[in-house]
Amino acid sequence: MNADYVLGIDVGGTKIALGLVDASGRQVAGDRIPTHAEAPPAVTVQRMVDRVHALMDEAGISEDAVRAVGIAFAGPLDPVEGRILTPPNLPTWHNFPVVDVVEAALGKPAYLENDANAAALGEAQYGAGVGVKNMVYLTVSTGIGGGAVLDGRLFRGETGAACELGHIKIVYNGRECGCGGRGCLEAYASGTALAKRAQEAVAAGEPSSLAELAGGVQHIRAETVVQAMDAGDELATRLWRETMEYLSAGVGSLVNTFNPRRIVVGGGLSNAGERLFGPLREGMRRHAMAPLAEVAEIVPAKLGDAVGVIGAAAVAWERLGEKS
Amino acid sequence: MNADYVLGIDVGGTKIALGLVDASGRQVAGDRIPTHAEAPPAVTVQRMVDRVHALMDEAGISEDAVRAVGIAFAGPLDPVEGRILTPPNLPTWHNFPVVDVVEAALGKPAYLENDANAAALGEAQYGAGVGVKNMVYLTVSTGIGGGAVLDGRLFRGETGAACELGHIKIVYNGRECGCGGRGCLEAYASGTALAKRAQEAVAAGEPSSLAELAGGVQHIRAETVVQAMDAGDELATRLWRETMEYLSAGVGSLVNTFNPRRIVVGGGLSNAGERLFGPLREGMRRHAMAPLAEVAEIVPAKLGDAVGVIGAAAVAWERLGEKS
Repeated sequence: MNADYVLGIDVGGTKIALGLVDASGRQVAGDRIPTHAEAPPAVTVQRMVDRVHALMDEAGISEDAVRAVGIAFAGPLDPVEGRILTPPNLPTWHNFPVVDVVEAALGKPAYLENDANAAALGEAQYGAGVGVKNMVYLTVSTGIGGGAVLDGRLFRGETGAACELGHIKIVYNGRECGCGGRGCLEAYASGTALAKRAQEAVAAGEPSSLAELAGGVQHIRAETVVQAMDAGDELATRLWRETMEYLSAGVGSLVNTFNPRRIVVGGGLSNAGERLFGPLREGMRRHAMAPLAEVAEIVPAKLGDAVGVIGAAAVAWERLGEKS
Repeated sequence: MNADYVLGIDVGGTKIALGLVDASGRQVAGDRIPTHAEAPPAVTVQRMVDRVHALMDEAGISEDAVRAVGIAFAGPLDPVEGRILTPPNLPTWHNFPVVDVVEAALGKPAYLENDANAAALGEAQYGAGVGVKNMVYLTVSTGIGGGAVLDGRLFRGETGAACELGHIKIVYNGRECGCGGRGCLEAYASGTALAKRAQEAVAAGEPSSLAELAGGVQHIRAETVVQAMDAGDELATRLWRETMEYLSAGVGSLVNTFNPRRIVVGGGLSNAGERLFGPLREGMRRHAMAPLAEVAEIVPAKLGDAVGVIGAAAVAWERLGEKS
């Protein structure tokens, strides 16, 4: 029996997901632990390592069977040096050499990757992109992130920061974005942007059930807009349609740029299902050039919440494969 | 002496450029012949082949020394099948299997590539991108085209149509573009777009020396705008600044997408030199995310008019290398 595993670690601001994953992308053991943002990261890594050893014992997996560690992190990070840079929500992690510390603690090679890029590779290898050589992944949630698998390999760019797809421009000189730029896709089509536009419209006096549904203007969320749209609210319907149109323009640019076979869309907003995928498919065909639109299909992500751990594991498997 | 060559062919609507190019990217013999758009393409290929044989005789290059043929064409085309599809300015070439016909006529393997992608590879291998692993090429001329060399290889996408970089969106719901979409970079920042905006502004009565300089509103070109700007014309200066700002927004999107080490800009508009590169570098830093902007430099293309033949030759050399 050739039971080799890698450890996938998805480090978030509030929790860390861990999983032992085999070469077919199956997670055989896993858990979540709190991040404790205020704690020194070396202490957090030690808690993580303890939990991993317990998981291995419970699952009957020997030390030797674990080949490598993949670490997904939201960034900014330096994947070449294996170092976290300046994550706004984890100040104690600033400049933390996570790869060195994890390698020393576990005695295995470790690889660090931007979480959206890792998720793209996870979906390509084990999810909605299986069998596809050129795939673009987009996660539409509070923010918008992305990644691309090109010619069958994760595309990292010059410094591992490629595919900041939430920050392609779609509105010239448009809304300010958290990145410091203007008119970015994320500033218009993320869940946060949708909620903000809804709050602004209601505050400006547009008639709607949104405030009542949410229990106050400031509590309106993307989910509230979907709920109100389903109940026939006109403002919510218009806002959703606009959001889909912004998203379609962005996806049109991505199709014209990457000429992909498949665009995989995940993240909270994609839970809206056909409400999102229907208009997005129609809009992409308007915004992308015909010969490129014809070969590009838009599908939902498959890995759901597991994408963090499975994506991190996919990075470890890919890097192991490159060395052999 | 290891004197191997490939034949680079750059097929345009009015003329075809041919060149015998060695592995260091040096063109040792070359010529241009008219395309004769109305002629059957098989006849044109035969004229081309005759001229190639004459060039080989003149340069003392034997049949055996020519290893392969690279063909650059503006598209649309199918690089896998080696077939031209539906070029608007060459109706007799519709559906022409150019690779099969050239291979039969010359007895050498031939490879077909979109001309902007071929140019990107040419600049990467022999021009302004030498030594760079991740490079984006942009040609700003009557239209805007582009290509990308990623991890050292030409990125083709699923059907060889990747990097239609003139058709990323920069103005939401903006001007109609020749591609059928709206708000594309090409519709704002190409030489044609600049001339059109200048004509519109003058026709709308804005005071300017442009019409007089050009000898009539309808004769205003991008070059006229540069000339008038140099003479202190306020409208021309504003239009140029706007064009650079549109171009910067586009390049910002490309930096956030590709995380390139270098952006190589060629095409007629780049002849404006620092008038273009100065504002573009400044604008890119505003539009791209800081860590990605820091590693991305913007430089002029180096190959000039030779990029068509050298790019086609670079494609042939790359494809030969893949087979060995």
